[in-house]
Amino acid sequence: MDFTDHLTATARRIETALIQLLDGPLCAGTPERLLAAMRHAMLGGGKRLRPFLALESASLFGIAESRAMAPALAIELIHGYSLAHDDLPAMDNDLLRRGQPTVWAHFDEWTAILAGDGLQALAFEVLAADDGDLDPRVSLQLVAGLARASGADGMVGGQALDLEAEKLGQPEVSSADHIRSLQAMKTGALIGFACQTGAFLSQASENERAALRQYGDQLGYAFQIADDLLDAEGDAKIVGKAVAKDEAAGKATLVSLMGIEAARRELSAAVEQAQKALQPFGESARHLIAAADYVASRDR
Amino acid sequence: MDFTDHLTATARRIETALIQLLDGPLCAGTPERLLAAMRHAMLGGGKRLRPFLALESASLFGIAESRAMAPALAIELIHGYSLAHDDLPAMDNDLLRRGQPTVWAHFDEWTAILAGDGLQALAFEVLAADDGDLDPRVSLQLVAGLARASGADGMVGGQALDLEAEKLGQPEVSSADHIRSLQAMKTGALIGFACQTGAFLSQASENERAALRQYGDQLGYAFQIADDLLDAEGDAKIVGKAVAKDEAAGKATLVSLMGIEAARRELSAAVEQAQKALQPFGESARHLIAAADYVASRDR
Repeated sequence: MDFTDHLTATARRIETALIQLLDGPLCAGTPERLLAAMRHAMLGGGKRLRPFLALESASLFGIAESRAMAPALAIELIHGYSLAHDDLPAMDNDLLRRGQPTVWAHFDEWTAILAGDGLQALAFEVLAADDGDLDPRVSLQLVAGLARASGADGMVGGQALDLEAEKLGQPEVSSADHIRSLQAMKTGALIGFACQTGAFLSQASENERAALRQYGDQLGYAFQIADDLLDAEGDAKIVGKAVAKDEAAGKATLVSLMGIEAARRELSAAVEQAQKALQPFGESARHLIAAADYVASRDR
Repeated sequence: MDFTDHLTATARRIETALIQLLDGPLCAGTPERLLAAMRHAMLGGGKRLRPFLALESASLFGIAESRAMAPALAIELIHGYSLAHDDLPAMDNDLLRRGQPTVWAHFDEWTAILAGDGLQALAFEVLAADDGDLDPRVSLQLVAGLARASGADGMVGGQALDLEAEKLGQPEVSSADHIRSLQAMKTGALIGFACQTGAFLSQASENERAALRQYGDQLGYAFQIADDLLDAEGDAKIVGKAVAKDEAAGKATLVSLMGIEAARRELSAAVEQAQKALQPFGESARHLIAAADYVASRDR
């Protein structure tokens, strides 16, 4: 099976697990309209890259998919809530995502805000309600790690810096370093956490955890450059959402600062670093190695 | 020391702990403007009723304030994030809270959304990062309980039902039962969780937990009726926020359905039920008994 098929098949199982979760006992008391908005935010596509990375990093340590699914879903719930909020008129003001109306466009703003809030809480509930297969200390480390990666020191903080640059013009001159650290928070932190899932679950050695952290950091960086390249060069029909938005917003990206060619070289270097970090894991890391190539490919 | 002095002194220690938290290592990487908005949401007043209830319920079981402070703060962070979001233009559109500009009015909408998102993540991080004094199973139960009480089956779901009634006119005819169950989610779930904190921390018997749940349910109900009475009769200067909003919004409340006198009787009955539930705890419950009278008092 080639990588894309493997990713697609895994994404389908993740989607099934998300459907079960949103149909299941944890959501049994959620009001109908709110639940419909949470489903809209979570279901019907998406590459499921983050939960895929979580499941793959678990399989590096021989951990079955069924045991790693709860953290994988929790990570995807956080990602889904962040998109529902980022798309809001007060934030990125996006009408389309994956070719579909965004949550606020389909429902309304308050519903999108509350759906995001509910999905965030659900992410932590899923981790904490994981039914005793896990050492509670490990579950607690996952809660702490996910909260850190997704909170004001991570994803939320990165989005705040991004909007400060776009809406308030701060800092006045963006440096490549500022953009890198912003993106490490906004995109890198959650991807990096997903890549470390297996190390958490198996209470791996510090060396193994550091290798996965390095892989995740470089992968997150590659992901962001590839996204910026896609925005600068992409075709809205392939991408499924508006493109050339960064330029229209006068937004500095690594691509606008460095030019397309230099950004492509930076992207290749990040992919190479990511893959190199996986050497200690040998053949069992082949899907994660392929994932780095995939993340960098132009039309993913 | 009378009850109000005791509450005020405790609120001051809670405020100090919040200041330390927002100045501390968990927020060291939070961008400056976002952190300022999180501080604005959390500091500078408020009765601190929910964390007070958490600390008092812990003291019923002889648990020191220092051990119960992390869950108390987590509960208050959830409450603070929910206010920052509820005040948004797309939700309740409030400009003032406790006589001060709301987070979005002082900063802007996207900052208020992100500050709320960051505070929610911080609440779970505080619970999970609690430094090993607690049995990890207990910490995990607190994470699960807080996520449930504050999420789409609890607080967030109640706010969604409330806004459906206000903005979409659904259901067309509000019954007292619908309003009661909405309020049990919107306000009652988090207050109820706070009241059970001590039972979680001490792994109390099911009887003790049920007694605290009953106290919390009735207290939450009393709180909401008192709030509606305050809105219907209150003076904006004393309350520190806009009043008569429910009537202006054409919003059905227990007060508008039952009339002021019947609502007052319902309030007294709830206070009595709450206090009765505490009988098994004897003299050590005196502050919680006084808290029920306080919650029902007209000018709190």
